[in-house]
Amino acid sequence: MIGFIGLGRMGSGMAANLLRAGHDVVVFNRTAEKARVLVGQGAKGAESVGAACRGEVVVTMLADDRAVEQVAFGTDGILERLGKGAVHVSSSTISVALAERLAQAHAARGQRFVSAPVFGRPDAAAAGKLFIVAAGEDAALAAVSGLFEAMGQRTFVVSNRPAASNLVKLSGNFLIAAVVEGLGEAMALVEKGGIDRRQYLEILTSTLFGAPVYRTYGGLLAEAKFEPAGFAASLGHKDIRLALEAAEALRVPMPLASLVRDRFLALLAQGGERLDWSAIGMLATKDAGLG
Amino acid sequence: MIGFIGLGRMGSGMAANLLRAGHDVVVFNRTAEKARVLVGQGAKGAESVGAACRGEVVVTMLADDRAVEQVAFGTDGILERLGKGAVHVSSSTISVALAERLAQAHAARGQRFVSAPVFGRPDAAAAGKLFIVAAGEDAALAAVSGLFEAMGQRTFVVSNRPAASNLVKLSGNFLIAAVVEGLGEAMALVEKGGIDRRQYLEILTSTLFGAPVYRTYGGLLAEAKFEPAGFAASLGHKDIRLALEAAEALRVPMPLASLVRDRFLALLAQGGERLDWSAIGMLATKDAGLG
Repeated sequence: MIGFIGLGRMGSGMAANLLRAGHDVVVFNRTAEKARVLVGQGAKGAESVGAACRGEVVVTMLADDRAVEQVAFGTDGILERLGKGAVHVSSSTISVALAERLAQAHAARGQRFVSAPVFGRPDAAAAGKLFIVAAGEDAALAAVSGLFEAMGQRTFVVSNRPAASNLVKLSGNFLIAAVVEGLGEAMALVEKGGIDRRQYLEILTSTLFGAPVYRTYGGLLAEAKFEPAGFAASLGHKDIRLALEAAEALRVPMPLASLVRDRFLALLAQGGERLDWSAIGMLATKDAGLG
Repeated sequence: MIGFIGLGRMGSGMAANLLRAGHDVVVFNRTAEKARVLVGQGAKGAESVGAACRGEVVVTMLADDRAVEQVAFGTDGILERLGKGAVHVSSSTISVALAERLAQAHAARGQRFVSAPVFGRPDAAAAGKLFIVAAGEDAALAAVSGLFEAMGQRTFVVSNRPAASNLVKLSGNFLIAAVVEGLGEAMALVEKGGIDRRQYLEILTSTLFGAPVYRTYGGLLAEAKFEPAGFAASLGHKDIRLALEAAEALRVPMPLASLVRDRFLALLAQGGERLDWSAIGMLATKDAGLG
């Protein structure tokens, strides 16, 4: 029996893939409607967080630190209800500090903790094509490797310290935002020089920059298409803030990350909360007096 | 008869590919030794810049604005010696302003001008695998398209204004430097968090960042291997300066380009002139008190 807590755009696809792989899954979501969809696909519905913690594994896929803290440390929460030796798999993009706190709290209760954030947007979650970055003790990782196979196309084990995978995830989101900022500045420059953005992007992706990150985010910037948000600017801002918090704790100055953080603040200040996070890449265009 | 001026690490490979494709090539280089190698491969040697300008096309592949200005505007230079209707193909990475000046000066003398900077390091030049970004009038481009086929794997025509291709090239080099800065900061962060740089790079290039720019420069940063320089830091600095000059002329604020410029200044201040330009990516590591 696998518990699954958090059935948003990412979690619902991940839980559905666990069902499809033949696992018994019991789901919980704060708003019950989303759970009903999964129950229609064969999941059991749990009435509470605690009721989703009766099996050998519980997976959490929630929006932010606060949501994870509530379900983990709250009354009738995961810490209180999960059995000894059972594994909590946290796939949310949370802070390094919270991952460390969870690792300690679970260990103190004889529970096991695997931190396994993912790369991929909701379509990849639905298709079972996520990339999973996992960290934890070997035996705990071995116990959940079958779940990773059902939810992702590849799993990277980076450390036996769970929080290391959160550092990889946060730094990866920083690198995506850095690509968006670079592309945004370059596109503003060439556009003002009379060159078509789409042709420019084709040159980039046909030569040195032929990677999904350039195709995906370059396409959004070339079309200036930021709604509906695949990943909201407010969440992008949160991740850059968490990367900078980790950098501060580790004493790593990151001037480009600081610049990107300020771009997010400008975007949010100008009403961009619900736009896709790649909309930070249009600020250079605006600064240049275009569009 | 094709003239070829500038037989450095890039130009010697390009000229050799013109010979291999069956063209008559007359070569000139400021230091004569390098010309002798090409003469051994079947080229004619010219005694002067002017003597390399007797055919229907002359190609220049030189290090910077100053070198191009000398061979173009100097006594016995290209402007003075090239015939009416003949084409000057400039493949050097020069400023937008100089490309505009060359276009005007050639037009005033009834000569034609194509600006065709390239993407690719010396090994790509030798293998005929360059990417060529070309701009100029249609008839002039048509007259030299066979030469591009001999030197490159693909040609992108971006505009009939020659300087547009220089803007694409300079912005592309800015994007490479931006990737290096982002990777440098991210690698410093994860390394200080106990994660191996090589494994981190493998995660990146196996997922969203699977492009030559990440493999090439990420590899250099993971190994901290900056000698011998494939492209020297002093030249990288020059290109970022030229991108910022173009941005200033066009009124395009580029905060990330400004940050990268300062990284180059720091690297040069610390004695990095002869290192590969990707060594700017180690400054974050140094700032973090590592290595």
